[in-house]
Amino acid sequence: MLDCFHDECGIAGVYGNPEAANHAYLSLYAFQHRGQESAGITACFPGGSFSSHKGRGLVSEVFDQEKLNQLKGTIAIGHNRYSTSGKAILENAQPFDIEYHRGRLSLAHNGNLVNSHLLRRELEAMGAIFRTTNDSEVLLHLIARSRHEDFIETLRSVFMTVRGAYSIVMTDGERLYGIRDPLGIRPLILGELEEGLVLVSESCALDLMGATFIREVNPGELIVIDGKGFQSIPLLPVTERSAFCIFEFVYFARPDSFQFGNYVHNVRKEFGRTLAREAPVDADVVIPVPDSGIVPTLGFSQESGIPFEMGLIRNHYVGRTFIEPKQSIRHFGVKIKLNPVKSLLEGKRVVVIDDSIVRGTTSRKIVKMIRDAGAKEVHMRIAAPPTICPCFYGVDTPTRSELIASNHDLEQICTYITADSLSYLSHEGMFTAAGGDRNTFCSACFDGNYPIPFDSPEAGTT
Amino acid sequence: MLDCFHDECGIAGVYGNPEAANHAYLSLYAFQHRGQESAGITACFPGGSFSSHKGRGLVSEVFDQEKLNQLKGTIAIGHNRYSTSGKAILENAQPFDIEYHRGRLSLAHNGNLVNSHLLRRELEAMGAIFRTTNDSEVLLHLIARSRHEDFIETLRSVFMTVRGAYSIVMTDGERLYGIRDPLGIRPLILGELEEGLVLVSESCALDLMGATFIREVNPGELIVIDGKGFQSIPLLPVTERSAFCIFEFVYFARPDSFQFGNYVHNVRKEFGRTLAREAPVDADVVIPVPDSGIVPTLGFSQESGIPFEMGLIRNHYVGRTFIEPKQSIRHFGVKIKLNPVKSLLEGKRVVVIDDSIVRGTTSRKIVKMIRDAGAKEVHMRIAAPPTICPCFYGVDTPTRSELIASNHDLEQICTYITADSLSYLSHEGMFTAAGGDRNTFCSACFDGNYPIPFDSPEAGTT
Amino acid sequence: MLDCFHDECGIAGVYGNPEAANHAYLSLYAFQHRGQESAGITACFPGGSFSSHKGRGLVSEVFDQEKLNQLKGTIAIGHNRYSTSGKAILENAQPFDIEYHRGRLSLAHNGNLVNSHLLRRELEAMGAIFRTTNDSEVLLHLIARSRHEDFIETLRSVFMTVRGAYSIVMTDGERLYGIRDPLGIRPLILGELEEGLVLVSESCALDLMGATFIREVNPGELIVIDGKGFQSIPLLPVTERSAFCIFEFVYFARPDSFQFGNYVHNVRKEFGRTLAREAPVDADVVIPVPDSGIVPTLGFSQESGIPFEMGLIRNHYVGRTFIEPKQSIRHFGVKIKLNPVKSLLEGKRVVVIDDSIVRGTTSRKIVKMIRDAGAKEVHMRIAAPPTICPCFYGVDTPTRSELIASNHDLEQICTYITADSLSYLSHEGMFTAAGGDRNTFCSACFDGNYPIPFDSPEAGTT
Amino acid sequence: MLDCFHDECGIAGVYGNPEAANHAYLSLYAFQHRGQESAGITACFPGGSFSSHKGRGLVSEVFDQEKLNQLKGTIAIGHNRYSTSGKAILENAQPFDIEYHRGRLSLAHNGNLVNSHLLRRELEAMGAIFRTTNDSEVLLHLIARSRHEDFIETLRSVFMTVRGAYSIVMTDGERLYGIRDPLGIRPLILGELEEGLVLVSESCALDLMGATFIREVNPGELIVIDGKGFQSIPLLPVTERSAFCIFEFVYFARPDSFQFGNYVHNVRKEFGRTLAREAPVDADVVIPVPDSGIVPTLGFSQESGIPFEMGLIRNHYVGRTFIEPKQSIRHFGVKIKLNPVKSLLEGKRVVVIDDSIVRGTTSRKIVKMIRDAGAKEVHMRIAAPPTICPCFYGVDTPTRSELIASNHDLEQICTYITADSLSYLSHEGMFTAAGGDRNTFCSACFDGNYPIPFDSPEAGTT
Ligand SMILES: Nc1ncnc2c1ncn2[C@@H]1O[C@H](COP(=O)(O)OP(=O)(O)O)[C@@H](O)[C@H]1O
Ligand SMILES: Nc1ncnc2c1ncn2[C@@H]1O[C@H](COP(=O)(O)OP(=O)(O)O)[C@@H](O)[C@H]1O
Ligand SMILES: Nc1ncnc2c1ncn2[C@@H]1O[C@H](COP(=O)(O)OP(=O)(O)O)[C@@H](O)[C@H]1O
Ligand SMILES: Nc1ncnc2c1ncn2[C@@H]1O[C@H](COP(=O)(O)OP(=O)(O)O)[C@@H](O)[C@H]1O
Ligand code: SF4
Ligand code: SF4
Ligand code: SF4
Ligand code: SF4
Ligand SMILES: [Mg+2]
Ligand SMILES: [Mg+2]
Ligand SMILES: [Mg+2]
Ligand SMILES: [Mg+2]
Repeated sequence: MLDCFHDECGIAGVYGNPEAANHAYLSLYAFQHRGQESAGITACFPGGSFSSHKGRGLVSEVFDQEKLNQLKGTIAIGHNRYSTSGKAILENAQPFDIEYHRGRLSLAHNGNLVNSHLLRRELEAMGAIFRTTNDSEVLLHLIARSRHEDFIETLRSVFMTVRGAYSIVMTDGERLYGIRDPLGIRPLILGELEEGLVLVSESCALDLMGATFIREVNPGELIVIDGKGFQSIPLLPVTERSAFCIFEFVYFARPDSFQFGNYVHNVRKEFGRTLAREAPVDADVVIPVPDSGIVPTLGFSQESGIPFEMGLIRNHYVGRTFIEPKQSIRHFGVKIKLNPVKSLLEGKRVVVIDDSIVRGTTSRKIVKMIRDAGAKEVHMRIAAPPTICPCFYGVDTPTRSELIASNHDLEQICTYITADSLSYLSHEGMFTAAGGDRNTFCSACFDGNYPIPFDSPEAGTT
Repeated sequence: MLDCFHDECGIAGVYGNPEAANHAYLSLYAFQHRGQESAGITACFPGGSFSSHKGRGLVSEVFDQEKLNQLKGTIAIGHNRYSTSGKAILENAQPFDIEYHRGRLSLAHNGNLVNSHLLRRELEAMGAIFRTTNDSEVLLHLIARSRHEDFIETLRSVFMTVRGAYSIVMTDGERLYGIRDPLGIRPLILGELEEGLVLVSESCALDLMGATFIREVNPGELIVIDGKGFQSIPLLPVTERSAFCIFEFVYFARPDSFQFGNYVHNVRKEFGRTLAREAPVDADVVIPVPDSGIVPTLGFSQESGIPFEMGLIRNHYVGRTFIEPKQSIRHFGVKIKLNPVKSLLEGKRVVVIDDSIVRGTTSRKIVKMIRDAGAKEVHMRIAAPPTICPCFYGVDTPTRSELIASNHDLEQICTYITADSLSYLSHEGMFTAAGGDRNTFCSACFDGNYPIPFDSPEAGTT
Repeated sequence: MLDCFHDECGIAGVYGNPEAANHAYLSLYAFQHRGQESAGITACFPGGSFSSHKGRGLVSEVFDQEKLNQLKGTIAIGHNRYSTSGKAILENAQPFDIEYHRGRLSLAHNGNLVNSHLLRRELEAMGAIFRTTNDSEVLLHLIARSRHEDFIETLRSVFMTVRGAYSIVMTDGERLYGIRDPLGIRPLILGELEEGLVLVSESCALDLMGATFIREVNPGELIVIDGKGFQSIPLLPVTERSAFCIFEFVYFARPDSFQFGNYVHNVRKEFGRTLAREAPVDADVVIPVPDSGIVPTLGFSQESGIPFEMGLIRNHYVGRTFIEPKQSIRHFGVKIKLNPVKSLLEGKRVVVIDDSIVRGTTSRKIVKMIRDAGAKEVHMRIAAPPTICPCFYGVDTPTRSELIASNHDLEQICTYITADSLSYLSHEGMFTAAGGDRNTFCSACFDGNYPIPFDSPEAGTT
Repeated sequence: MLDCFHDECGIAGVYGNPEAANHAYLSLYAFQHRGQESAGITACFPGGSFSSHKGRGLVSEVFDQEKLNQLKGTIAIGHNRYSTSGKAILENAQPFDIEYHRGRLSLAHNGNLVNSHLLRRELEAMGAIFRTTNDSEVLLHLIARSRHEDFIETLRSVFMTVRGAYSIVMTDGERLYGIRDPLGIRPLILGELEEGLVLVSESCALDLMGATFIREVNPGELIVIDGKGFQSIPLLPVTERSAFCIFEFVYFARPDSFQFGNYVHNVRKEFGRTLAREAPVDADVVIPVPDSGIVPTLGFSQESGIPFEMGLIRNHYVGRTFIEPKQSIRHFGVKIKLNPVKSLLEGKRVVVIDDSIVRGTTSRKIVKMIRDAGAKEVHMRIAAPPTICPCFYGVDTPTRSELIASNHDLEQICTYITADSLSYLSHEGMFTAAGGDRNTFCSACFDGNYPIPFDSPEAGTT
């Protein structure tokens, strides 16, 4: 409803647990925010056949007790998807289950390959058929066509061929595999259950499952899990630089998660502190756009001394469907989600903090809403730099022309959103707060420095 | 899932708007937290026939565009219900539509009548048939049996007969009526749309509809709305005392609502401030049990100077259905909803604030969760006095024996929840913060002072 | 889809069986043809509370295993309804469950009261409230208001007051009651399970349940069933005449049922035989409009010696929903249901037999369909007299102006339906074949002789 | 519910009609009896992209107006499927839509390939991945891998490679293709709409669409339909023999259809006549097991002079779901579908005719049901020879060991089903009645003469 970046997926793999599908379900539930349009789980016993269920909607809508019970086995793979995309002919839902010359394979993928269109055309030329528009199908074709005897070698050659962002969990019905691209763009975390091992996109899933954090999968690393435990295989050559998606810290990840060597909460709060130093403002109160704005706002407040208040209330029942009245209601789009606390705002000079401005329409409505509630001044502070470029690494972003900061300067944006002042976090401030630099993180959507070049104009589409 | 008090209902009436049903829907959506088990709307044109739709589930599940479109008319009544109660024979969903000697009537009711069982037995003795276990049916029978020519006199005599808590919206297909009991136990608010007038349980609905707040309906007052505007009729004799449900301030109402002459946010924050003064504690950080604990925690922090942090994260996707794994996961019940931010809690002396302790099981899990996350000390502070008595005025409460504070002293509760210390807000502190005293508010669940006596042991059941 | 008379209901009562609801379900399933719009079952243990489930659609859609399992008890009442009527405000679904001064009552009703509007107005004047537009609610109010101590006397006085067609099953949670109106217009049959007793609208339900036929309930009789068996109470004064609905033989009842002292199949076949004698025709083949036309056609064939053939095939999957193409397809309405067997019709002189002509539009399409398939001549024979009047005794009929035979003579109808000849069964022929005369049967829809006068123009509406 | 052979599919293709999907829907509806478990339609404009919808259930359940409206285009392909088979991992629903080096392809298939397992293993060895267990996927891989420039040559080489029974409709988004295997095992019919051309499995679909029959597609023929009309291409070499599935005449096809050069009705009636001559019996009445038994029974009656009666009534509402009571009811399984007309059977010597005996359990229940209804003698006559072998050409049959006639002689079967006598139609009688001989028809399920050899034991599985 509100304009924002959307993460594309959350993935989970469970090995060696008698309730594998149930734990995959818990993971998908924990990082439901990573993808809300469809969900799927495939399960099996070692050597047994796959059972699978996928559907559109939230995890809690797609699965019920009966459906979960049918997903028997000690191995399971799960997938949350943001966008089911318009392409309705082909069935893009994951995990993606196939049979091929080695037997069976089930794969779930978070990310985006930048050379998949090229590879797809080559594969088609060699006689491959595609049922979906999904990158994963390219991966599976490559795996199936590899002439290597050894499966690890197969994987190595395939992932040497593809370029892009990917965290992958995969099972051949015997073992569970986890792979992360050489730049580590998307997260992938290894954890331990009382019984069994897990691989998940975000650490909050470990907490819900009652699992212990072991470590993050390394860039370019292959983790192979079987009855004996896990084994680390350096699959792909890595360079000194990594390219962890900094937007995970800015927005995607839950504040209670740990990623890229840091607590999300700590980084996000440091964004707020730095912002307070970089763009101070004389004000009576500082309020977040909840919930993603809360943590940086706390940092801002603590650094600046301006009292923190919950000046906007977020409706608990914000859902995916909502019927608008035909007659327009002022700021309706934002009201469904947020409502101001008038007594906090009346006559006040207000700083309001959000994680990003995408199209600007939401920020504009929020500023007006605060002003209508009686604020004397409204100062917008953004706990990240301006978003100026689309992401081609698995995040659903507006096109460049829709990104307000891509073609407007600070003053113009400030005027558009009708704020009294507007400031963004600096690039340096962001990197430092996140504990790294330009060679640690991908920050392409903030600066256009794409860590992986893409050769075709189609590259960016999913 | 977590143990708590449940409000029973939210009601809305719309008059003179071409999209009356749509606005009723918006109201129900805004105060969905007042009742999540079923929802219903009845609509009509003045003089036209009623159309009605009811169903189980959230407002957004019960209604879709097609169903709303069928509810044509400029008058509408809506109802959110917490409990559909076990009594499946009889159809308790509201609004309640009937035909009788005057024509048609549709009624929605928030509250509970304490003499309804008696009245029902009398009505049955006179030949009445009942299809539901609902208080509202008693009201309708009384209205239908009244011998008064005049409808207002009818209403007066009926509401002189019943005793209890009630806010009611009602239409005879011509006018919209709003009634509040003589003690004003349940809220009811009058507002103005660009086109038409509305009556709603909670003011946040006005904000979503884009309506202006006019005023609260007074205790004992009848509001009659027709094409000429609204008319105030003093229906029932009132005394000096009122009995506004103080639990609205403690928990039910959204912080952005205005009720009983005060902003909920302000009162709730003052609860926190007072608590900080009454029960100070030496600590490093104070955290809320979100979301209801946030506002008092801000007050506590501001008063005490202990830094406020979001040490517990509330999952956005907490729904009504969730599949538990068969193997127990530590604190699972609470984990589904809340997750600690470890980096904030490790090695800290933590104050955690919630609005109430009902059975104690949830608080116990929360304390343990915080301690497991590394807290050195965990001090629980409750922004209200101990809840020791059930409510008979329309709120779904556990029985006295289930209320931990009803039969355990402070120390015992503190031991049970495994906190390092525990304190509640004082009664005086609560009243003062809410801007009144024992004669302004009902506080029966905190002190057993029931403002309306009830004569039968059945009284408290719905 | 095709134009026809619709029966209004089928009812069932089960007593003393551990799977009472399941047997009620079987009954509703067996006479699903009596009402396809909604279905409901109420069940209880003697002295226990009612559980109930109702819904729109076929019995197999409304109930599933889980829902049936919830309907626990050894007593059950079921109801199939044809029309849910447009009146959506009020909830007309049956069985109708109430509480009143004697306790509980659940009632299901097949028929129509001709003085219910009058009674309703009187009841309303005395303070009754109505939630539905249903006759049954009038009955329940009358029962609740009766001043008789004795329940049997209560029933007697109530049913002395109402006039019309009714077969009723009812339980007070202790006993099962069956009542048939003094003219016996609607059927009601008593049967015996291995365990327990049953009352059903149509005997085919006994067969499906594996029950034995005991006898039909008599006109004016009350059957009371309890743990000791059944008891017959002559409730209402009866005259010499009865008024069994002859349309049951013509169309409603399944041919495998036994009603009004005769096998439906035998009567229906005799209709065909008589028709062959009364309206002979020189032809090569005689075909039914399946399925209702099959039995009379067999009679016609056997009497006339003209070979019987299945010249029209009835699609097994005729459902309630069907999406028509926007472009018109010739005879589409009928094609969805029926398709000719060309090889049987080409070049033939064809007699086609149906049970009735209502609006004429269907017969017209059928004649054309047969002719398009190559028939040289098409002779229509109807195994009943012309339907000229609406029914006010519980059958959903078109208004007089829509009944083609009401305002057109034989020749006009024949021309309209484009048949080469058309004949109907004579009134005498029908009575004789059915084993009675004008004093045995109601035949009002064929001759306007209404056995119960009705005093208001509203009488005929439900 | 009753034991029988199940057809596997019905297929339809529409070209050049503005309501192409709607006409495909009508076809699926007309031959719903060919597959009741799932249904799917893919539609497009020439050169446009595919839209597709598939689901489980009857055609009328899978599609509604909204879903059909989304299937825009003048080309459409539809598919009814009997078995969704247990293999839930892979998505077997058709039509099957892919992208490959030539562009897009959508294919629907009726039949079974006997060398698909072999081909599949070869394709896998060459790197193909499979998402389903479906034969169609093999076809699509072969098409995609063909090195022929020309599409027709591609099809020729692919269909020279596969062996088995297949009727196929297919579109590349530009043209519509229809193909029938060289033995013509499965039917495929070409028809003409007022606007456009159609290909359907069964001619009753033409009648419902208002299309004209052009001719059957020939064995080994490829029909290519484009804007200029249709073109016939002899795709595959054919021999003198054909192998039309004789079971279509015995059971599958609707009697109003025309297939393999004959009217189904005529053939089926001749089965009955021949049976009367081959296996005469002294009896009072001959009755069908409706509906499939009706036509042969008419033949039997006409030939033998024994009067035809509808002694068993088939419930119109036989659906796919039904809840059985826990307590057993005598012959329950059959009663749900059939009920005897006692007055017709009492004291009679009855001949009962069905199309086949598969496991024998149903026939046994039917014989008992007739006897329980009072029949003095029950003689079973089957209007086909004994079914002794499974089908490997696209029909879902029990295994050999489940086919009662496969391992019991006539007398044993007669004893098992408790009939007074039992006779089957002779093989010669069947062929003659069907207008051909062993070289015209496949009759493998009756005699084990499989017209296409299969090399692996897996061949027979779907
Ligand atoms: N309590 C929470 N539960 C889930 N996600 C949260 C929570 N708090 C913050 N987030 C983060 O904020 C994002 C969504 O929260 P919010 O800002 O409320 O909505 P919006 O996406 O509309 O900005 C998620 O991507 C998530 O990582
Ligand atoms: N943003 C909000 N939206 C809706 N209700 C809220 C909100 N914040 C606080 N509340 C209040 O808190 C209650 C529910 O919030 P919360 O404490 O998160 O859940 P719980 O009922 O489990 O304690 C509601 O009754 C409501 O009045
Ligand atoms: N086999 C049967 N199952 C159910 N009803 C049947 C059957 N045969 C005849 N009938 C009778 O015919 C009516 C419906 O059959 P049919 O003539 O096929 O449809 P229509 O109502 O469209 O004329 C029912 O009212 C029923 O009593
Ligand atoms: N009127 C009809 N509509 C559809 N199918 C029919 C019809 N009459 C006969 N059939 C044929 O009979 C089969 C199903 O009819 P029936 O014998 O009643 O059920 P069963 O499959 O249980 O034997 C179908 O395969 C169909 O070809
Ligand atoms: S472009 Fe932005 S969103 Fe995409 S991976 Fe890089 S930092 Fe993350
Ligand atoms: S008893 Fe408590 S919850 Fe009930 S009305 Fe009084 S204050 Fe409110
Ligand atoms: S009027 Fe016709 S349908 Fe009605 S009860 Fe009389 S015979 Fe039956
Ligand atoms: S084996 Fe039988 S069912 Fe199969 S194709 Fe041959 S005749 Fe038809
Ligand atoms: Mg946000
Ligand atoms: Mg709370
Ligand atoms: Mg009929
Ligand atoms: Mg059959």
